[in-house]
Amino acid sequence: MTPTDATATAGSAPPAPRITAAGRRTRDRIVRTAAELMFRKGVAGTSIPDVQQAAKVSASQIYHYFGDKSDLVRAVIRHQIERTLEGQRPLLDRLDSFEALRAWCDEAVEVQKRRNCEGGCEIGSLASELVETCELMRGELVAAFDRWEAPIREGLRRMRETGVLVADADVDHLATAMLAAVQGGLLLTQVRRSPEPLRAATDAAIGYVETFAA
Amino acid sequence: MTPTDATATAGSAPPAPRITAAGRRTRDRIVRTAAELMFRKGVAGTSIPDVQQAAKVSASQIYHYFGDKSDLVRAVIRHQIERTLEGQRPLLDRLDSFEALRAWCDEAVEVQKRRNCEGGCEIGSLASELVETCELMRGELVAAFDRWEAPIREGLRRMRETGVLVADADVDHLATAMLAAVQGGLLLTQVRRSPEPLRAATDAAIGYVETFAA
Repeated sequence: MTPTDATATAGSAPPAPRITAAGRRTRDRIVRTAAELMFRKGVAGTSIPDVQQAAKVSASQIYHYFGDKSDLVRAVIRHQIERTLEGQRPLLDRLDSFEALRAWCDEAVEVQKRRNCEGGCEIGSLASELVETCELMRGELVAAFDRWEAPIREGLRRMRETGVLVADADVDHLATAMLAAVQGGLLLTQVRRSPEPLRAATDAAIGYVETFAA
Repeated sequence: MTPTDATATAGSAPPAPRITAAGRRTRDRIVRTAAELMFRKGVAGTSIPDVQQAAKVSASQIYHYFGDKSDLVRAVIRHQIERTLEGQRPLLDRLDSFEALRAWCDEAVEVQKRRNCEGGCEIGSLASELVETCELMRGELVAAFDRWEAPIREGLRRMRETGVLVADADVDHLATAMLAAVQGGLLLTQVRRSPEPLRAATDAAIGYVETFAA
């Protein structure tokens, strides 16, 4: 809730709740716009004035919600991991069989085909650009990858519990290998403009998990 | 050979060859310096004046060897893939057994431990930042990854020829999966500051290759 937002919605309804909702919408629009710009032009290539112009907000609105660019970038990371996980649901939340693992990877490959293998991974690109900038940023990236890895590990754990995988299968290790394959596969698929690297990488990761089949 | 280099070495020896060698040294120093800066601060965060100052050269020297920043960045990609491959030799050139694959991956993990898992992959970072900038740049990155993948594929091919792998093992597919695992593993290792993701990713890739053992 800011003077700016109050101004923007002034006179249209009971002040407090409407202003809060409007404030939230403004904040969301800033984050979505920043995320789009940073995905296309990189974080370094996206200035606060760029975001301001594209989101049609004032500088004071941006600085009200985000103390500085670093704050905004961290909100962008959270937004992008949220969108990435959302896009992979419901498959991501039910990785409890080899068929489910394959369906999830097939869908990831299809998404790349639909995009002509352009753009790469929203989170991977942010990670590569930002990981060495500061510990706060790296912490945000660690949290993002942890959120992505959790449902993969959870699915593998259920496979172990239901006897699909052997009892001593290390699901932490397998989930990390799976996420790494997706990340490396997405980068090579982006560079080569071919779905084959992502296909090869995920085939390999699933093939490795299969060596732990009970 | 440039007027600037001629000036730099004037009067010290028979002109032509000395000037050429000096020119090459100057060019190499510019590329090495740019590569170091771009590795630490990103390509977007490294200006021509930054390179000029750090390499102790004039702007005209940089623009003599490199028409523009894009030319210099492409030379940096070539320099970094060269260094990356050099750093992995002789292991990389003899990946013709499971022991050799494991030794190569072990060494990659050890390198990350010695670096405290900081910095990530020189080529992967450049790829992530530059792949969408233009087709010329993407072509340079494709060439870099192709150069890296070639000795992996060659090793796997020898494993197939010597009967270590089954006759119908698809060495192109396996080599791509291996390179993707290294890339994804390096990124997660960098973000988490832990060698475990690279270890997990390469264990998985080798474990997958093992499913094609004769």
